[in-house]
Amino acid sequence: MAGPRKLVLIGIGAGNPEWITLQAIAAIREIDVLFVVLKEDQLDDLVEARRIIIERHRDVPLKTVELRDPPRPWQTTPDYPAAVASWRAQRLESWSAAVAAELPEGASGGFLIWGDPSLYESTLAIVDKLADASTRAGRPIEVQVIPGISCVLALAAAFKIPLNRQGRAVQIAPARLLASGMPETVDDVVVMLDGKQTFARIDPAGLEIFWGAYLGTAAELLISGPLAQVRDEILRVRAEAAEMNGWIFDTYLLRRDRVSRSGPVRN
Amino acid sequence: MAGPRKLVLIGIGAGNPEWITLQAIAAIREIDVLFVVLKEDQLDDLVEARRIIIERHRDVPLKTVELRDPPRPWQTTPDYPAAVASWRAQRLESWSAAVAAELPEGASGGFLIWGDPSLYESTLAIVDKLADASTRAGRPIEVQVIPGISCVLALAAAFKIPLNRQGRAVQIAPARLLASGMPETVDDVVVMLDGKQTFARIDPAGLEIFWGAYLGTAAELLISGPLAQVRDEILRVRAEAAEMNGWIFDTYLLRRDRVSRSGPVRN
Repeated sequence: MAGPRKLVLIGIGAGNPEWITLQAIAAIREIDVLFVVLKEDQLDDLVEARRIIIERHRDVPLKTVELRDPPRPWQTTPDYPAAVASWRAQRLESWSAAVAAELPEGASGGFLIWGDPSLYESTLAIVDKLADASTRAGRPIEVQVIPGISCVLALAAAFKIPLNRQGRAVQIAPARLLASGMPETVDDVVVMLDGKQTFARIDPAGLEIFWGAYLGTAAELLISGPLAQVRDEILRVRAEAAEMNGWIFDTYLLRRDRVSRSGPVRN
Repeated sequence: MAGPRKLVLIGIGAGNPEWITLQAIAAIREIDVLFVVLKEDQLDDLVEARRIIIERHRDVPLKTVELRDPPRPWQTTPDYPAAVASWRAQRLESWSAAVAAELPEGASGGFLIWGDPSLYESTLAIVDKLADASTRAGRPIEVQVIPGISCVLALAAAFKIPLNRQGRAVQIAPARLLASGMPETVDDVVVMLDGKQTFARIDPAGLEIFWGAYLGTAAELLISGPLAQVRDEILRVRAEAAEMNGWIFDTYLLRRDRVSRSGPVRN
């Protein structure tokens, strides 16, 4: 093996193992080392999903290196951005040491990324910094990103709906930004990573919700309707599923009824 | 063949043929009829890209039915929404007739969708209406949507950047909405389908651009930098490429420098 080392972020899609792309499969076959990030709140089902993907697409054994993450700060931590920055610094140090030790010259290391590497995923930021620092230190590392089916696209496919409406924008937002209600300027907002069921706390007037959990898996749950009518059902179903499975990953689209704002919409 | 007829919208990814998913490949193998939409401004390269995908993944011949679209109204047409509605009505009628004639009971028909079926793509809206009308008329049609790598994800992967920033939203918008400048409430906007190079007409102060054309193909072009510095280069490169290839499909992310708004950002 010659040439620079390489780190590949491989988007594997958000749920259905059939959402993997040929490019991701080729990368899984070509990497020399798999880096597996172990979080303190590790979800066994997701670890298992990744294991199945490797087993299905890889003929020869794959060296696996575990990266243990420090505990991630809660969003309620005072000065949350600073706490995240410190957490990222610790993580960067630990990952850099592991890559330096385990990735030989000319070798290629991969990370399997749930969904897509570019959406609400911090691996890319860490890997970029790690690669920059290593390159500056005379041990160049190339980075490659392989896109994957994000949970946003998975949600739209499950409901068979467009994300945008004619001539309009769609926003993808973390739940915290929704806490004070729907933004004024956008009628369609997809929310990811909402641990607090923000949808149930905002004014539901004129809003429709498309809610999905465990998208693309056998446990998939889909509920949609006027927010005022279905939010309690979603809360109940969500709580029961989280209790039964031990974890939940849900995504939703909030859609403002445009009739109530600016007259009927032709489609 | 028994049971209801089925129409499958198959997202094939936005450029690289390796971005196709296993689910899309399985669908290409299983459909009985392929519906191919011929537009008046048909791009031979995209037709060819779809032909190559079929040839690569399909062992047995595939019956192909061509759907000829009426000319799409220009965005400068007076009462553009009404013109689009009329165009869609004509299209719906023509597609409905073709599906009724060419899709037998129990058979499955597919549409290959560039990128993802849910983002700025009108096929889904038409197919939904067609299926509803047919189902109401006693000839049920099921619809299935298979997600694909959108040009938004392709852009982020090419530049190896996250779409969102920590705790912030990202907006996907048609170019028209950008004409009056960046929205106040969002710092990251991805623009699709900009035939007018809107990025070059807005105030560039504090904005960075990540511009990509022919993403994922051998002709891929990538330019990024402060908008004020690179916009003229993008205009030049874009014009030359469009002239040489006869068509261009580009996507860009505009990113507001947050330092200039609210102090330094830790990452």
